[in-house]
Amino acid sequence: PVPSAAELQAAAASATPHPAELPPLDDATVRRYTFTVTEAVQEVAPGVTRVVWTYNGSSPGPLLHGRVGDTFEITLVNEGTMGHSIDFHAGELAPDEPMRTIEPGARLQYTFTADRAGVWMYHCSTMPMSQHIANGMFGAVVIEPANLDPVDRQFVLVQSEQYLGADGGPTDATKAAAAIPDIVTFNGRAFQYDAHPLTAAVGDRVRFWVLDAGPNAALSFHVVGGQFDTVWTEGAYSVRGGTGAGTAGTTGAQTLPLLAAQGGFVELALREAGHYPFVNHQMSLAEKGAHGVLLVEPA
Amino acid sequence: PVPSAAELQAAAASATPHPAELPPLDDATVRRYTFTVTEAVQEVAPGVTRVVWTYNGSSPGPLLHGRVGDTFEITLVNEGTMGHSIDFHAGELAPDEPMRTIEPGARLQYTFTADRAGVWMYHCSTMPMSQHIANGMFGAVVIEPANLDPVDRQFVLVQSEQYLGADGGPTDATKAAAAIPDIVTFNGRAFQYDAHPLTAAVGDRVRFWVLDAGPNAALSFHVVGGQFDTVWTEGAYSVRGGTGAGTAGTTGAQTLPLLAAQGGFVELALREAGHYPFVNHQMSLAEKGAHGVLLVEPA
Amino acid sequence: PVPSAAELQAAAASATPHPAELPPLDDATVRRYTFTVTEAVQEVAPGVTRVVWTYNGSSPGPLLHGRVGDTFEITLVNEGTMGHSIDFHAGELAPDEPMRTIEPGARLQYTFTADRAGVWMYHCSTMPMSQHIANGMFGAVVIEPANLDPVDRQFVLVQSEQYLGADGGPTDATKAAAAIPDIVTFNGRAFQYDAHPLTAAVGDRVRFWVLDAGPNAALSFHVVGGQFDTVWTEGAYSVRGGTGAGTAGTTGAQTLPLLAAQGGFVELALREAGHYPFVNHQMSLAEKGAHGVLLVEPA
Ligand SMILES: [Cu+2]
Ligand SMILES: [Cu+2]
Ligand SMILES: [Cu+2]
Ligand SMILES: [Cu+2]
Ligand SMILES: [Cu+2]
Ligand SMILES: [Cu+2]
Ligand code: NA
Ligand code: NA
Ligand code: NA
Ligand code: NA
Ligand code: NA
Ligand code: NA
Ligand SMILES: [Zn+2]
Ligand SMILES: [Zn+2]
Ligand SMILES: [Zn+2]
Ligand SMILES: [Zn+2]
Ligand SMILES: [Zn+2]
Ligand SMILES: [Zn+2]
Ligand SMILES: [Zn+2]
Ligand SMILES: [Zn+2]
Ligand SMILES: [Zn+2]
Repeated sequence: PVPSAAELQAAAASATPHPAELPPLDDATVRRYTFTVTEAVQEVAPGVTRVVWTYNGSSPGPLLHGRVGDTFEITLVNEGTMGHSIDFHAGELAPDEPMRTIEPGARLQYTFTADRAGVWMYHCSTMPMSQHIANGMFGAVVIEPANLDPVDRQFVLVQSEQYLGADGGPTDATKAAAAIPDIVTFNGRAFQYDAHPLTAAVGDRVRFWVLDAGPNAALSFHVVGGQFDTVWTEGAYSVRGGTGAGTAGTTGAQTLPLLAAQGGFVELALREAGHYPFVNHQMSLAEKGAHGVLLVEPA
Repeated sequence: PVPSAAELQAAAASATPHPAELPPLDDATVRRYTFTVTEAVQEVAPGVTRVVWTYNGSSPGPLLHGRVGDTFEITLVNEGTMGHSIDFHAGELAPDEPMRTIEPGARLQYTFTADRAGVWMYHCSTMPMSQHIANGMFGAVVIEPANLDPVDRQFVLVQSEQYLGADGGPTDATKAAAAIPDIVTFNGRAFQYDAHPLTAAVGDRVRFWVLDAGPNAALSFHVVGGQFDTVWTEGAYSVRGGTGAGTAGTTGAQTLPLLAAQGGFVELALREAGHYPFVNHQMSLAEKGAHGVLLVEPA
Repeated sequence: PVPSAAELQAAAASATPHPAELPPLDDATVRRYTFTVTEAVQEVAPGVTRVVWTYNGSSPGPLLHGRVGDTFEITLVNEGTMGHSIDFHAGELAPDEPMRTIEPGARLQYTFTADRAGVWMYHCSTMPMSQHIANGMFGAVVIEPANLDPVDRQFVLVQSEQYLGADGGPTDATKAAAAIPDIVTFNGRAFQYDAHPLTAAVGDRVRFWVLDAGPNAALSFHVVGGQFDTVWTEGAYSVRGGTGAGTAGTTGAQTLPLLAAQGGFVELALREAGHYPFVNHQMSLAEKGAHGVLLVEPA
């Protein structure tokens, strides 16, 4: 049984939201993590459960954050019941060894240097990948481009899809193959930031880092009531500070468009207090859960 | 029963086409409109009807057009049987009051200043939005960027999808959730500009302003026989006058790519008389109606 | 019966792969081709056959390659059993005569000048186009932009979808209308470059020219283990040599995003020997065959 939007919203209200704030960047140049893979059953809505496979117990997995030139050392530990692996788009290297599937009980050291700025996806690359990603094995690595403009608030949102199979079971392969998801989420749970809004104050400048983890769906990221005066996608600005490439006068964007495995960021300034929904403007996906609220409070 | 392409084409031939020309811009700086919401039954093809919910009786609703800095004052009047609302992407403001749902018989004043150039979507934002959009409640606000190059002809095309439910009824929610439309249109009716082509003369420079209103589908906008020497999307040029960003020599684009709620414009010059189809080059969507003709006549 | 990924991979292993290398550019300025249309039955996997309609016996059809200013003269010869035609996006001209459908036994001369750089699609434009394209009638015209950076290896990949109908028959129109393909390919056969990898050496700089022929699906082109330091799409660079538009420091892209009928190229350098899969990162489409391997051998 596929839960309704109301059921998903109720489940989100009683769940702890996944943190969406981007923590400040420290001055480390070597960043070490242990990613432990576990498998569990998650309640999606009252009476509806599914298998989740995760890095460190959450989906998305740990948020990695650094600068160009930083080295990341990740120890992958497989405490699951089947083979798993990891592929970091943030690093350039031959996949053969570092991305190989490791058996339950095994561990693997994965080291990469972040040579290029980006909002990079990581994910389990064990076949079938649509299963491993849809079951929860994905996350983001934010490597900041140089000379970012100062902002007051920074959030990270990772979109992903869920294809419900038998109760308590994994992703329905037929639904995934058809790319018709039951649930679409920001940061792993449908509608969680409706129940638990992200917050900012009037006058704040806000940056959203956004990654589309898929496995399949696109994302047309929009903030209701807002306009993006800055859009950076996959290595390049199209609009910055209200100035668009080749364009005179003040301009902006209504959405950040991403296909699966793309990332970017947008910035906007909020001049009035209120509730600003953020959505995948592919509306049927917003209605399946790719929807939240930015609550702007008086300064 | 879903009408065939031939049935849709026959219906378009006997219907009055939605105007596609962009009217010239006057010098007003405050632009006032009344948007009256009504609900009606529309004949899609002989023997096939559906509910349409509209602003001022047409879908898309009124085309708004102005410059950066213009103020728009819209009075929304709900003469329908249920709650409706409006969200203008063209303005930046807290959604709480201006985008609220108003009951039948109510009215609401919505004022925004167009701070940024763009081809902005507007739509009913009453839940479920996929219903209100697919039933016809959407339109475009064209805020011209400064220093546009002169052109001879300007058209506005808004793509939207239809998901047929019971005869005379509203959008089929299951089809919409699966994002598999029955009909895809430019300016609200499938194939209408096949029966009633848009026209230009040889030597004319033509600009198409294009908005993808969704609720879900993407648009890969192409003009058969033409190449775009200018592409502007969501605030930025990628190619202008045959010069692409970072690119030596003459270049161009075969499509303008838009996800739902994105807009932009393209320009092309037509050197020979003939029939130039314009399509969503996602071919199955063109075959569902996202197809028309630009007729270029001898100069 | 839809073949499994394993069956498709086995079939690819015993088939001759479609050549993917971009041949060097000679100094001709007039380029003449004969495109002969034939219809045949193709074995997709053991016991699964489908109709293919092709230009010169292969799908994609002949790769055309030139410079801005070159003239292409194509003689289309229809040796099939029904009407066919051709539409070259690479040329600007009135469609009426050159793109008309010609009957079996007929021939047609199609001449165009390549006025603009791009990775242009061509395809049969006989109705219903989704059938003619999905049955195999498509290909690419690569018109190089000036001042390309030198690379060591160049490949051309054309994505297309297959919608299996009755055994030995053409595209299933219902599946195509729903845009849920059974098989997705690079250069006409699922998984062919897994069995027969493309090759490069350590230290090589590699350019992939990529076209999404559709008829419907999008492509989020990614090379596992690699990052694109250069991305050119539809006439413009967004990132070149690690420098992104408006962006300080070194940056890059994880995917090249294309909607149907879009093309572009990406470049990357390979510093380690190994197997680098290239995929449509819409994972369910990769699992239907949009997957191959770039084998990087020690220098
Ligand atoms: Cu896994
Ligand atoms: Cu409404
Ligand atoms: Cu909206
Ligand atoms: Cu054909
Ligand atoms: Cu075409
Ligand atoms: Cu990946
Ligand atoms: Na990678
Ligand atoms: Na500007
Ligand atoms: Na808005
Ligand atoms: Na140029
Ligand atoms: Na063309
Ligand atoms: Na740079
Ligand atoms: Zn991967
Ligand atoms: Zn509140
Ligand atoms: Zn909402
Ligand atoms: Zn809205
Ligand atoms: Zn005519
Ligand atoms: Zn046509
Ligand atoms: Zn065509
Ligand atoms: Zn090997
Ligand atoms: Zn693979």
